[in-house]
Amino acid sequence: MQSKFLSRLRERNPLVHNITNIVAANFSANGLLAIGASPIMSANLEEMVEVPKISQALVINIGTLLGKEIDAMVLAGKTANEIGIPVVLDPVGVGATTFRQQTVSALLNQVKFTAIRGNAGELAYLANVQWAAKGVDAGNGKANLGEIAHKVARQYGCIAIISGETDFISDGSRLAKLQNGTPLFPKITASGCLLSAICGAFLAVAEPQDYFAALIEGCSAYAIAGEIAAEPLSATQNGQFFVGLLDQLACLSPEHLNQYARISYE
Amino acid sequence: MQSKFLSRLRERNPLVHNITNIVAANFSANGLLAIGASPIMSANLEEMVEVPKISQALVINIGTLLGKEIDAMVLAGKTANEIGIPVVLDPVGVGATTFRQQTVSALLNQVKFTAIRGNAGELAYLANVQWAAKGVDAGNGKANLGEIAHKVARQYGCIAIISGETDFISDGSRLAKLQNGTPLFPKITASGCLLSAICGAFLAVAEPQDYFAALIEGCSAYAIAGEIAAEPLSATQNGQFFVGLLDQLACLSPEHLNQYARISYE
Amino acid sequence: MQSKFLSRLRERNPLVHNITNIVAANFSANGLLAIGASPIMSANLEEMVEVPKISQALVINIGTLLGKEIDAMVLAGKTANEIGIPVVLDPVGVGATTFRQQTVSALLNQVKFTAIRGNAGELAYLANVQWAAKGVDAGNGKANLGEIAHKVARQYGCIAIISGETDFISDGSRLAKLQNGTPLFPKITASGCLLSAICGAFLAVAEPQDYFAALIEGCSAYAIAGEIAAEPLSATQNGQFFVGLLDQLACLSPEHLNQYARISYE
Repeated sequence: MQSKFLSRLRERNPLVHNITNIVAANFSANGLLAIGASPIMSANLEEMVEVPKISQALVINIGTLLGKEIDAMVLAGKTANEIGIPVVLDPVGVGATTFRQQTVSALLNQVKFTAIRGNAGELAYLANVQWAAKGVDAGNGKANLGEIAHKVARQYGCIAIISGETDFISDGSRLAKLQNGTPLFPKITASGCLLSAICGAFLAVAEPQDYFAALIEGCSAYAIAGEIAAEPLSATQNGQFFVGLLDQLACLSPEHLNQYARISYE
Repeated sequence: MQSKFLSRLRERNPLVHNITNIVAANFSANGLLAIGASPIMSANLEEMVEVPKISQALVINIGTLLGKEIDAMVLAGKTANEIGIPVVLDPVGVGATTFRQQTVSALLNQVKFTAIRGNAGELAYLANVQWAAKGVDAGNGKANLGEIAHKVARQYGCIAIISGETDFISDGSRLAKLQNGTPLFPKITASGCLLSAICGAFLAVAEPQDYFAALIEGCSAYAIAGEIAAEPLSATQNGQFFVGLLDQLACLSPEHLNQYARISYE
Repeated sequence: MQSKFLSRLRERNPLVHNITNIVAANFSANGLLAIGASPIMSANLEEMVEVPKISQALVINIGTLLGKEIDAMVLAGKTANEIGIPVVLDPVGVGATTFRQQTVSALLNQVKFTAIRGNAGELAYLANVQWAAKGVDAGNGKANLGEIAHKVARQYGCIAIISGETDFISDGSRLAKLQNGTPLFPKITASGCLLSAICGAFLAVAEPQDYFAALIEGCSAYAIAGEIAAEPLSATQNGQFFVGLLDQLACLSPEHLNQYARISYE
């Protein structure tokens, strides 16, 4: 690939507004700082008009939902739509409970998302495809992931991203498959949540016609940072991977991206 | 000891439902992943019937209590009792305030706990034994910890675990004393919360008649992982211990357990 | 400098009550443990009279405000004032939204703060000085930071601390400038939040006439721990800095402080 957005992200240092959960909040903020963005983590209903207005992207993550957080997500999402900044949805564990299904349904009805990023189980649920998800984890299934990504993209008029051993990214017509990564990713919590946040950071520095390219680069950047972080580690160095991933996100260069990226299109 | 549950935990990868606090959420989830379980961290009242039903154990931690979390704990606990999955209580800082006392009392009145795990100050409070606890830390006292464990176990019909330099585990008649560990444990926050979560993971793969043995193995596994993580560290490498503990939880083998465990019974 | 409070902090191990946000909670608790304090992280409205009463300092951080947290902050602050323990305010991102401005205004009207610690953008807002803050980050401006610190200190009858490349500490008449630190500090989230917590820990072991000196030592200790942690690291080892800062806070000695401190007075 020819990296285009990473340098711009580092130069512009965009403010990325995150409404996220108590598990992912610290790690997502640290990951955003590492890649070069400026995180603002707020779910205060009272400031959900003002915070999106000073931000260049909004990321909504339904991992934990306490108090007035759903109202905050809807208000922030509507504001983001009005002012035209990109919005990412991370439908954490959406298939697991009726409450999560209703929450995501309410969000999808009221907010237009630029991108939806989840694991196979989450996007299979959104595509109404049979899948054995496991709580907030991907679980197992046999459906074609490229078709699931296309279906979610078409149904919601967004870019759909299924992350896993291979990442599938669809804008409804084009499909990109990313082969980078490491088996250590699912060993640390919130690694998916952070990827959603990083999608927001890359969208924040792209024009709408480049959103598909920006998300391919963002997902590649994250997978490659993990791949490089994992190189010197054994399969059980979960803690070191947690630390090394932040280091590699911070030192990742466009040259790394160009050299490491394994992307194919269908 | 003869490890029996660790391999099973790694094979079955049980879903462990955690209702926990904003300090412990990330670390507990990472620790559960490292030991081989699959964490789901949710305190959403609206899904407290469904989440326990897909889980193999429930862990309730009263560290921070915002919004409707107490209602969520009661509902999840009752559901867990109905379907027969094990439930662990971590009564964080219970002696410190009237509110925590009332919360724990309400929980104990409405939910049957398989195990209660806390530090000496917390279990002394539950046993109605004099003790100078210090906030959420163990504090100091002179009472016999084995007797406190027995008393809590008998009073609440559960397995009582007092963790500290020596861990005391009682099922009301038997008492196990575990001598593994490291002084670095109390230097990192939420190390007790994570142990409670790991107790849930070991219970998740045990039959009721094996719960006592499973908790002894789970507490030993945690203490030994910490002991191994601390071996190359000085007494002030708190940050490295935070990281190394996750690594050692992930690479801990049944052989490590059998070799390192220092358990005596009374 | 001649270190006076660090040894006392390690001996007395004061309980520091923190009302803080979901991003900073874990890191602040770990940092407090590392420096030698005992953290209690609670925003439960129901215990905001009792927790300050067992604590030696209170730290209020407005980073994320959900549910009844503002009421909790006011009640804890009033209690702390009544019993005479020091109170620190961290007005995270106060300039960014009307809601944060109103929250901080309500706090300042009802609670007497011993110290207010923030970045340049936050204290410029409080001093009513023009500044281009960026979300919760410092942003850019041209005003004189020493004068801003003096103005905040005089206006609110407190010690004002502006942290950044140089730290400015004013008690309204004296001004201390601290030149320690590392550019890695703003690369990890909640590094300001943890500094506010550490200010609380140093105040907890000082008499009121020594508060200014205690805060100078506390801010120096934090900056020096970061400086030492950064020595072996490159500018992009964000993750290693996160870990190393905790290690260095734990092993920092009065001798380190005396040797490294670069403080000037105006």
